[in-house]
Amino acid sequence: MTYVVDTEALVKRYLDTVANGTSADVAALYAEDATLEDPVGGGQMHIGRHAIEGFYQAMDAADLTTELLTFRSGGHEAAFVFAINVGGAMRIEPIEVMSFDRDGQITAMKAYWSQDNVTML
Amino acid sequence: MTYVVDTEALVKRYLDTVANGTSADVAALYAEDATLEDPVGGGQMHIGRHAIEGFYQAMDAADLTTELLTFRSGGHEAAFVFAINVGGAMRIEPIEVMSFDRDGQITAMKAYWSQDNVTML
Repeated sequence: MTYVVDTEALVKRYLDTVANGTSADVAALYAEDATLEDPVGGGQMHIGRHAIEGFYQAMDAADLTTELLTFRSGGHEAAFVFAINVGGAMRIEPIEVMSFDRDGQITAMKAYWSQDNVTML
Repeated sequence: MTYVVDTEALVKRYLDTVANGTSADVAALYAEDATLEDPVGGGQMHIGRHAIEGFYQAMDAADLTTELLTFRSGGHEAAFVFAINVGGAMRIEPIEVMSFDRDGQITAMKAYWSQDNVTML
Protein backbone atom coordinates (compact mmCIF):
# COMPACT_ATOMS: atom_id res chain seq x y z
CA MET A 1 0.00 0.00 0.00
CA THR A 2 3.04 2.26 -0.08
CA TYR A 3 3.24 2.79 -3.82
CA VAL A 4 2.54 6.16 -5.42
CA VAL A 5 0.43 6.66 -8.54
CA ASP A 6 -0.70 9.95 -10.12
CA THR A 7 -4.39 9.40 -9.49
CA GLU A 8 -5.46 12.69 -11.08
CA ALA A 9 -3.71 11.86 -14.37
CA LEU A 10 -5.25 8.37 -14.27
CA VAL A 11 -8.75 9.76 -13.68
CA LYS A 12 -8.34 12.26 -16.53
CA ARG A 13 -7.16 9.45 -18.82
CA TYR A 14 -10.19 7.40 -17.79
CA LEU A 15 -12.66 10.24 -18.52
CA ASP A 16 -10.95 10.97 -21.83
CA THR A 17 -11.14 7.28 -22.80
CA VAL A 18 -14.83 7.06 -21.83
CA ALA A 19 -15.49 10.04 -24.12
CA ASN A 20 -13.23 9.15 -27.06
CA GLY A 21 -12.36 5.45 -26.83
CA THR A 22 -14.14 2.16 -27.32
CA SER A 23 -15.45 -0.11 -24.58
CA ALA A 24 -12.33 -2.25 -25.13
CA ASP A 25 -10.14 0.82 -24.58
CA VAL A 26 -11.92 1.63 -21.32
CA ALA A 27 -11.80 -1.99 -20.13
CA ALA A 28 -8.04 -2.02 -20.77
CA LEU A 29 -7.67 0.63 -18.05
CA TYR A 30 -9.00 -1.87 -15.51
CA ALA A 31 -7.03 -4.65 -13.83
CA GLU A 32 -7.89 -8.21 -14.91
CA ASP A 33 -9.75 -8.92 -11.64
CA ALA A 34 -11.24 -5.45 -11.12
CA THR A 35 -14.76 -4.79 -9.82
CA LEU A 36 -17.26 -2.19 -11.01
CA GLU A 37 -20.51 -1.11 -9.34
CA ASP A 38 -22.50 1.49 -11.30
CA PRO A 39 -24.81 2.65 -9.88
CA VAL A 40 -23.96 1.77 -6.28
CA GLY A 41 -27.05 0.14 -4.78
CA GLY A 42 -28.24 -1.02 -8.20
CA GLY A 43 -27.75 -4.60 -7.15
CA GLN A 44 -25.22 -5.59 -9.83
CA MET A 45 -21.46 -5.96 -9.44
CA HIS A 46 -19.39 -6.43 -12.61
CA ILE A 47 -16.36 -8.58 -11.83
CA GLY A 48 -13.38 -8.91 -14.15
CA ARG A 49 -12.26 -7.03 -17.26
CA HIS A 50 -14.46 -9.04 -19.61
CA ALA A 51 -17.65 -8.23 -17.69
CA ILE A 52 -16.51 -4.61 -17.37
CA GLU A 53 -16.08 -4.31 -21.14
CA GLY A 54 -19.64 -5.60 -21.49
CA PHE A 55 -20.83 -2.85 -19.17
CA TYR A 56 -19.19 -0.11 -21.27
CA GLN A 57 -20.43 -1.59 -24.59
CA ALA A 58 -23.79 0.07 -23.98
CA MET A 59 -21.99 3.40 -24.48
CA ASP A 60 -20.13 2.50 -27.69
CA ALA A 61 -22.86 3.89 -29.94
CA ALA A 62 -23.33 7.09 -27.93
CA ASP A 63 -21.70 10.45 -28.57
CA LEU A 64 -20.19 11.20 -25.16
CA THR A 65 -18.29 14.08 -23.62
CA THR A 66 -16.96 14.12 -20.06
CA GLU A 67 -15.83 16.86 -17.70
CA LEU A 68 -14.00 16.55 -14.39
CA LEU A 69 -15.70 18.86 -11.87
CA THR A 70 -14.20 18.11 -8.44
CA PHE A 71 -11.23 15.85 -7.74
CA ARG A 72 -9.93 14.47 -4.44
CA SER A 73 -7.16 11.99 -3.90
CA GLY A 74 -5.92 9.85 -1.04
CA GLY A 75 -3.03 7.44 -1.47
CA HIS A 76 -3.78 5.17 -4.42
CA GLU A 77 -7.50 6.05 -4.37
CA ALA A 78 -9.49 8.91 -5.86
CA ALA A 79 -12.98 10.36 -5.44
CA PHE A 80 -14.37 12.79 -7.98
CA VAL A 81 -17.46 14.53 -9.30
CA PHE A 82 -17.75 14.58 -13.07
CA ALA A 83 -20.29 15.24 -15.79
CA ILE A 84 -21.06 12.95 -18.70
CA ASN A 85 -23.04 14.38 -21.58
CA VAL A 86 -24.83 11.88 -23.80
CA GLY A 87 -25.57 12.92 -27.36
CA GLY A 88 -26.18 16.52 -26.34
CA ALA A 89 -29.46 15.32 -24.86
CA MET A 90 -28.70 14.22 -21.31
CA ARG A 91 -26.22 15.21 -18.62
CA ILE A 92 -25.42 13.00 -15.62
CA GLU A 93 -23.23 14.14 -12.69
CA PRO A 94 -22.06 11.16 -10.61
CA ILE A 95 -19.52 10.91 -7.84
CA GLU A 96 -17.11 8.05 -8.55
CA VAL A 97 -14.58 6.40 -6.28
CA MET A 98 -11.65 4.47 -7.74
CA SER A 99 -8.72 2.43 -6.44
CA PHE A 100 -5.58 1.85 -8.49
CA ASP A 101 -2.83 -0.75 -8.39
CA ARG A 102 0.87 0.03 -8.63
CA ASP A 103 0.68 -0.15 -12.43
CA GLY A 104 -2.03 2.51 -12.48
CA GLN A 105 -4.78 0.09 -13.47
CA ILE A 106 -8.20 0.54 -11.89
CA THR A 107 -8.88 -2.23 -9.35
CA ALA A 108 -12.30 -1.00 -8.15
CA MET A 109 -14.80 1.59 -9.35
CA LYS A 110 -18.03 2.65 -7.66
CA ALA A 111 -20.38 5.24 -9.16
CA TYR A 112 -22.86 7.08 -6.94
CA TRP A 113 -25.78 8.64 -8.82
CA SER A 114 -29.51 8.32 -9.32
CA GLN A 115 -32.22 9.74 -11.57
CA ASP A 116 -32.03 12.90 -9.45
CA ASN A 117 -28.61 13.57 -11.00
CA VAL A 118 -29.78 13.26 -14.61
CA THR A 119 -30.70 16.43 -16.51
CA MET A 120 -32.43 16.33 -19.89
CA LEU A 121 -30.95 19.07 -22.07
CA MET B 1 -28.43 -5.43 1.70
CA THR B 2 -32.07 -4.78 0.77
CA TYR B 3 -32.91 -2.34 3.52
CA VAL B 4 -33.68 1.31 2.85
CA VAL B 5 -32.29 4.21 4.84
CA ASP B 6 -32.62 7.95 4.16
CA THR B 7 -28.93 8.51 3.50
CA GLU B 8 -29.32 12.25 2.82
CA ALA B 9 -31.01 12.85 6.18
CA LEU B 10 -28.32 10.78 7.88
CA VAL B 11 -25.51 12.73 6.21
CA LYS B 12 -27.14 16.05 7.17
CA ARG B 13 -27.49 14.84 10.77
CA TYR B 14 -23.82 13.84 10.73
CA LEU B 15 -22.65 17.24 9.42
CA ASP B 16 -24.88 19.04 11.92
CA THR B 17 -23.48 16.93 14.77
CA VAL B 18 -19.88 17.56 13.67
CA ALA B 19 -20.62 21.29 13.78
CA ASN B 20 -22.72 21.47 16.94
CA GLY B 21 -22.16 18.28 18.95
CA THR B 22 -19.37 16.79 21.02
CA SER B 23 -17.03 14.03 19.90
CA ALA B 24 -19.20 11.62 21.92
CA ASP B 25 -22.27 12.79 20.02
CA VAL B 26 -20.54 12.19 16.69
CA ALA B 27 -19.20 8.80 17.78
CA ALA B 28 -22.74 7.77 18.76
CA LEU B 29 -23.74 8.06 15.07
CA TYR B 30 -21.29 5.25 14.27
CA ALA B 31 -21.91 1.53 14.71
CA GLU B 32 -19.95 -0.16 17.48
CA ASP B 33 -17.58 -1.88 15.02
CA ALA B 34 -17.41 0.94 12.46
CA THR B 35 -14.26 1.96 10.61
CA LEU B 36 -13.02 5.46 9.80
CA GLU B 37 -10.20 6.48 7.44
CA ASP B 38 -9.54 10.26 7.33
CA PRO B 39 -7.67 11.13 5.24
CA VAL B 40 -7.70 8.14 2.90
CA GLY B 41 -4.09 7.18 2.24
CA GLY B 42 -2.98 8.71 5.53
CA GLY B 43 -2.01 5.27 6.78
CA GLN B 44 -4.30 5.17 9.82
CA MET B 45 -7.59 3.30 10.14
CA HIS B 46 -9.70 4.00 13.26
CA ILE B 47 -11.62 0.87 14.20
CA GLY B 48 -14.54 0.86 16.63
CA ARG B 49 -16.62 3.61 18.22
CA HIS B 50 -14.13 4.26 21.02
CA ALA B 51 -11.25 4.92 18.63
CA ILE B 52 -13.58 6.99 16.45
CA GLU B 53 -14.53 9.20 19.40
CA GLY B 54 -10.81 9.74 19.99
CA PHE B 55 -10.43 10.88 16.40
CA TYR B 56 -13.18 13.51 16.76
CA GLN B 57 -11.89 14.75 20.14
CA ALA B 58 -9.30 16.83 18.30
CA MET B 59 -12.23 18.94 17.05
CA ASP B 60 -14.00 19.42 20.40
CA ALA B 61 -12.22 22.71 21.14
CA ALA B 62 -12.71 24.10 17.61
CA ASP B 63 -15.52 26.37 16.43
CA LEU B 64 -16.82 24.45 13.41
CA THR B 65 -19.44 25.01 10.76
CA THR B 66 -20.27 22.55 7.99
CA GLU B 67 -22.02 22.84 4.63
CA LEU B 68 -23.22 20.06 2.32
CA LEU B 69 -22.20 20.97 -1.24
CA THR B 70 -22.90 17.93 -3.44
CA PHE B 71 -24.75 14.78 -2.39
CA ARG B 72 -25.06 11.42 -4.15
CA SER B 73 -26.67 8.26 -2.84
CA GLY B 74 -26.70 4.63 -3.81
CA GLY B 75 -28.52 2.02 -1.76
CA HIS B 76 -27.36 2.31 1.84
CA GLU B 77 -24.25 4.27 0.85
CA ALA B 78 -23.63 7.95 0.22
CA ALA B 79 -20.86 10.05 -1.35
CA PHE B 80 -20.75 13.79 -0.82
CA VAL B 81 -18.68 16.95 -1.09
CA PHE B 82 -18.88 19.23 1.92
CA ALA B 83 -17.09 22.19 3.46
CA ILE B 84 -15.88 22.41 7.03
CA ASN B 85 -14.91 25.82 8.36
CA VAL B 86 -12.59 25.86 11.36
CA GLY B 87 -12.70 28.93 13.59
CA GLY B 88 -13.35 31.23 10.66
CA ALA B 89 -9.68 30.69 9.73
CA MET B 90 -9.58 27.60 7.56
CA ARG B 91 -11.92 25.90 5.10
CA ILE B 92 -11.51 22.28 3.98
CA GLU B 93 -13.60 20.67 1.22
CA PRO B 94 -13.37 16.85 1.34
CA ILE B 95 -15.31 14.18 -0.48
CA GLU B 96 -16.58 11.60 2.00
CA VAL B 97 -18.05 8.17 1.40
CA MET B 98 -20.23 6.50 4.04
CA SER B 99 -22.04 3.21 4.47
CA PHE B 100 -24.99 2.79 6.83
CA ASP B 101 -26.55 -0.19 8.56
CA ARG B 102 -30.30 -0.82 8.74
CA ASP B 103 -30.50 1.27 11.92
CA GLY B 104 -28.96 4.25 10.13
CA GLN B 105 -25.67 4.02 11.97
CA ILE B 106 -22.47 4.70 10.04
CA THR B 107 -20.54 1.46 9.45
CA ALA B 108 -17.70 2.92 7.38
CA MET B 109 -16.46 6.42 6.59
CA LYS B 110 -13.67 7.42 4.23
CA ALA B 111 -12.61 11.04 3.72
CA TYR B 112 -10.72 12.03 0.56
CA TRP B 113 -8.80 15.30 0.87
CA SER B 114 -5.30 16.72 1.01
CA GLN B 115 -3.57 20.03 1.74
CA ASP B 116 -4.63 21.10 -1.77
CA ASN B 117 -8.21 21.23 -0.47
CA VAL B 118 -7.45 23.47 2.51
CA THR B 119 -7.96 27.23 2.14
CA MET B 120 -6.72 29.70 4.75
CA LEU B 121 -9.34 32.44 5.17
